[in-house]
Amino acid sequence: MNPIKSESKSQQKSSGEITDSESSGGPVSHQNQLLSPPDASGKSTALDRWLMRTMLQKAGNPEIEVVLWDESVISTASTPTKIRVKILNRSTLYKLLFDPSLYFGDGYSQGSIEVEGGLIAFNEAIDHCTHTSDTEGFYRDRFRRCLSWLKRNTIDAARSNIHHHYDIGNDFYRLWLDEQLAYTCAYFPEPDVSLEEAQIAKMDHVCRKVGLKPGDSVVEAGCGWGALAIHMAKHYGVKVRAFNISREQLAYARERARYEGLENQIEFVEDDWRNISGSYDSFVSVGMLEHVGLKNYEELGRVIARCQRPHGRGLIHSIGCNSPRMLDSWTTKRIFPGAHVPSLSEMMRIFEPQKFSVLDVENIRLHYALTLEHWLERYERELDQVRDMFDETFIRTWRLYLSASVAAFRAGSLQLFQVVFTNGANNEVPWTRAGLYQNAGQDR
Amino acid sequence: MNPIKSESKSQQKSSGEITDSESSGGPVSHQNQLLSPPDASGKSTALDRWLMRTMLQKAGNPEIEVVLWDESVISTASTPTKIRVKILNRSTLYKLLFDPSLYFGDGYSQGSIEVEGGLIAFNEAIDHCTHTSDTEGFYRDRFRRCLSWLKRNTIDAARSNIHHHYDIGNDFYRLWLDEQLAYTCAYFPEPDVSLEEAQIAKMDHVCRKVGLKPGDSVVEAGCGWGALAIHMAKHYGVKVRAFNISREQLAYARERARYEGLENQIEFVEDDWRNISGSYDSFVSVGMLEHVGLKNYEELGRVIARCQRPHGRGLIHSIGCNSPRMLDSWTTKRIFPGAHVPSLSEMMRIFEPQKFSVLDVENIRLHYALTLEHWLERYERELDQVRDMFDETFIRTWRLYLSASVAAFRAGSLQLFQVVFTNGANNEVPWTRAGLYQNAGQDR
Repeated sequence: MNPIKSESKSQQKSSGEITDSESSGGPVSHQNQLLSPPDASGKSTALDRWLMRTMLQKAGNPEIEVVLWDESVISTASTPTKIRVKILNRSTLYKLLFDPSLYFGDGYSQGSIEVEGGLIAFNEAIDHCTHTSDTEGFYRDRFRRCLSWLKRNTIDAARSNIHHHYDIGNDFYRLWLDEQLAYTCAYFPEPDVSLEEAQIAKMDHVCRKVGLKPGDSVVEAGCGWGALAIHMAKHYGVKVRAFNISREQLAYARERARYEGLENQIEFVEDDWRNISGSYDSFVSVGMLEHVGLKNYEELGRVIARCQRPHGRGLIHSIGCNSPRMLDSWTTKRIFPGAHVPSLSEMMRIFEPQKFSVLDVENIRLHYALTLEHWLERYERELDQVRDMFDETFIRTWRLYLSASVAAFRAGSLQLFQVVFTNGANNEVPWTRAGLYQNAGQDR
Repeated sequence: MNPIKSESKSQQKSSGEITDSESSGGPVSHQNQLLSPPDASGKSTALDRWLMRTMLQKAGNPEIEVVLWDESVISTASTPTKIRVKILNRSTLYKLLFDPSLYFGDGYSQGSIEVEGGLIAFNEAIDHCTHTSDTEGFYRDRFRRCLSWLKRNTIDAARSNIHHHYDIGNDFYRLWLDEQLAYTCAYFPEPDVSLEEAQIAKMDHVCRKVGLKPGDSVVEAGCGWGALAIHMAKHYGVKVRAFNISREQLAYARERARYEGLENQIEFVEDDWRNISGSYDSFVSVGMLEHVGLKNYEELGRVIARCQRPHGRGLIHSIGCNSPRMLDSWTTKRIFPGAHVPSLSEMMRIFEPQKFSVLDVENIRLHYALTLEHWLERYERELDQVRDMFDETFIRTWRLYLSASVAAFRAGSLQLFQVVFTNGANNEVPWTRAGLYQNAGQDR
């Protein structure tokens, strides 16, 4: 049970914002210029079908069938498949030509694309096709990554990007996250533990990796709704300064800290990570790096070097990928503006210029697939309540986002890295990692 | 006890080769043109002393004292120190100006430099000075690394480089390595276990990380004297194909496999890693990457992608460093021609172009410091026997190499990375790492 009651402010029913600007801010404007409503579009032509088949071939011949508005079927499946994508009008088909990722997502959100046979299965089929280890793709991705380098993630842009996703109402997140509102990958000691237990296990795993001791001080960059800050203060007896630029999240976190009687141990600061001051035993950041922007990694390293004491260990927990690449355009436009998921070589731009010693990297990708399955299941279960808050476009957007994310972590398109690091000359590090796995949860 | 008796071929007493060519091949030519023997050099001048002091300042003011041939003392120690370096003649001082690393090493080897207060402590004092996290140093190192990119490590050069270090007589290595001749970092479950136990624990740690099962096939790149290949075959019931280009090591490994009755399970191949053919469940390489050369990392990745089956896990165990840099010139000229120790971002050049998924990185740097302490202690204990094989220059060269290596791993100038990886789409990976730490050694 969540100790904090639902906020009393009345929720306005708002729509999934589909606009064509990259970072439009709030989620409330209902715009529908981009995609026209489903229509019959007449019979499909030979050109329509040839274009669709060519698109599928370019996508690597996924194991799916496409059904056009006139029921004609285009298939690249090598064996019979239940996964069918229905494109309900010609204009949707032609938009897909220009940016398949963006207009598939928008088309699905607005109902001009339907998927049969499972949204996760469809996304997995697509993701598996991109999993050839073609070197050509590697270099193409490197080029696209160079372009992304140009993207600004200034303090102002970061604020607007974060507001876009995280400030759409705590009540909404409360419907389908765990009771502590941990909105990052959980750690399941066994696959069948509950989401609640797995989120607690994740927090303990992080605390053990950085070796918290009572009286330590910790700075947390990007604290979400405060679950980890509160866990560290309550169970490890440390002082926490936690930074976030989402106002709604901070309001909730402060209220929860007061409820727990931890307001003297935790300071929640509404500010950007670039403005972290002071010195701490540990720097911890769980699920913020995705929003930092590749261009700012070296600056993040400098901030950590400035604020983490020589014998401290830090941890960065982030979604990542196996080789430098860009997130798909739908996700970066509609879900996480300004987001970038780094490869390990990219993450090293944080650590190497400062000569930090990387002690431990753990990849728990399949734990994120499972976490997302829990979220998706809860989301679908609470759909009536979501429907009271948002319109159908929003509902379909979030269903696609959660389903595509399950698929991406299952298929290996996305990874989840936890990186532990310390000052290069620090010898006060655990002799082995065995301690992480002994009497887990008993040390607090 | 080592099951294989000392080889009967008579050892020729040979010298530590000090020549001025980068990769001179055999270790037997005794050349002494470079450094003249100690002489009085008269009184030191103000210029001599100023040069020495400037060099120390450039080195970051290490906590040492330098004593010149006329007993004049130059100190940059901030507190009284027992570490004193004696420079016994002027020509040695002037050579240091041009390449401190190379000519310190050569000077020590030939007795024109003496160190009081401990060779390890001296090297640690120097290494600590290079441990500022100065960005300038980072970029300088990147530049030097670019130069190293030009270095060839062709198959022929690799053969000559490996011969230089590893083919100087198995009897020599037998004096101070563990009984299985494992010449790589051991893994000490507790710091006080013996070197023998720690080498076995290391091999088990590797086997567990890649998840060997009876009947699996493994290809090992750079197998040394065969300890790991034999361990895997004997204790995990796998078939091993082990590659090496050191003839002396292979002769020993084959004899040992025959002695153990494992000749049907292990094939030792005298060939370069580039020529690995076939397909295997696991690719394992312990202590070879240092000799591969940065330029060849992508090719190594292609070789692994070609030979490791989709559900296999691989492991690369290598000396590394916290940020891209070059090994010092003495080590790359006198000890390991052609060697390069990668940072993690550099190691990722093996994995990222192939879209391998990195599952686990463990840094066991302090285990290598301890391993080297064991080797150094045994080396000093067996000095009489070393003296029967080699001259004093060789003895001092190897003492410096082992001592400087202890210091480098203690001070954090060097790291030891074990990286576990698999095909990007492989979901048959351990759910957590807990299995590595349960009943260690009981699964074979």
